Amino acid sequence: MQQLKLYDLDRSGNCYKVRLLLSMLGLAYERIHTDSTAGETQTEAFKRLNPRGQIPVLVDGETVIWDSMAILIYLARRYGAEQWLPSEVMDEVRVMQWLAVSENELLYGLARARVTVRFNRPFDLEQCHRDAKPGLEAMEQRLGHYNWLATEHPTIADIACYPYVALAEEGRFSLDHYPAVRSWLKRIEELSGWVPMIEKPGYKPGLPRKYSVK
Amino acid sequence: MQQLKLYDLDRSGNCYKVRLLLSMLGLAYERIHTDSTAGETQTEAFKRLNPRGQIPVLVDGETVIWDSMAILIYLARRYGAEQWLPSEVMDEVRVMQWLAVSENELLYGLARARVTVRFNRPFDLEQCHRDAKPGLEAMEQRLGHYNWLATEHPTIADIACYPYVALAEEGRFSLDHYPAVRSWLKRIEELSGWVPMIEKPGYKPGLPRKYSVK
Repeated sequence: MQQLKLYDLDRSGNCYKVRLLLSMLGLAYERIHTDSTAGETQTEAFKRLNPRGQIPVLVDGETVIWDSMAILIYLARRYGAEQWLPSEVMDEVRVMQWLAVSENELLYGLARARVTVRFNRPFDLEQCHRDAKPGLEAMEQRLGHYNWLATEHPTIADIACYPYVALAEEGRFSLDHYPAVRSWLKRIEELSGWVPMIEKPGYKPGLPRKYSVK
Repeated sequence: MQQLKLYDLDRSGNCYKVRLLLSMLGLAYERIHTDSTAGETQTEAFKRLNPRGQIPVLVDGETVIWDSMAILIYLARRYGAEQWLPSEVMDEVRVMQWLAVSENELLYGLARARVTVRFNRPFDLEQCHRDAKPGLEAMEQRLGHYNWLATEHPTIADIACYPYVALAEEGRFSLDHYPAVRSWLKRIEELSGWVPMIEKPGYKPGLPRKYSVK
């Protein structure tokens, strides 16, 4: 097996999803710092890797995969145990439902709220919060009765949904009304291989969602 | 096999994705008209089917599946030939990359642009167009060299991406600069089982994207 390479930015939640799964699967990889906010994903060279001009991108030998959801699926199928992405149809479909939530409510709701507050991006914060709410409500309902989103075990659905929920308060989206979601965040943080988003002094290890908003 | 039931609205592109695949797979189903714009997805009864409060929802006997992407995956795995969602890992991952585009650039770019123009929803049209562009550019690049998005055959990736691209001009997003994408739309419309989004006099059959914007 050749060394995996991840085009990556530490503060990107979409990149963090991939780093979490790589760590939980015990896979070594090289991080290639790619600052999307400085135009580094818009160069011709980068767009040959990913025509969308976005991180993360995973390179595994001759294989290039863009998109965080597709990368999670690739890693689970290629290197993961059955648990992470079951092959039984209904279990697989349940995983896909929550991957869809991660790409919709969590990305266009919570992640956009976060970049609006933290990085001054020009989105409508209240609209972002409205977009996020149905996803969080669906999660709260599920997690009020089950430990994990899709099956009886953690899957890539939990990994995909975790980062932007853990970072919700950076986008001023309060999790006060979502106690089951908060318990689930803690369960994920206790999984073997869990790592914080950013390893820096001043960031509270184990609780990335609590790091201070400037 | 029990009768499939689809909670559905004719003018919803996300529902249309599912109807297209059902038709291409030759599956009979009952349509249950559910007007999300009249609050019919926000009732307690509906939220027991789908806690997100969204259409489409597919019911297959005792099984309830919400989310258009998850429904496409379910139908392909349960009722479709290998072609629609290949089991070979890299082919599957290529399908997932384009499903991600359908959930991101096409939904939050093109579909939001369309509801802004057609249904007076309060989104920023220029922002929607900016959000759409990287997805269309990636499609144009791929389709400049290949007939289909993910593999050498049509897959659920093509089905998922088709509706909101076909409807792009309803959101004032011009496809003039995307000739390969326009040719791909025509190829999809020539597939066996293709149906227009809305069957009504005055809608030009075979070219749903051309129906007039009020």
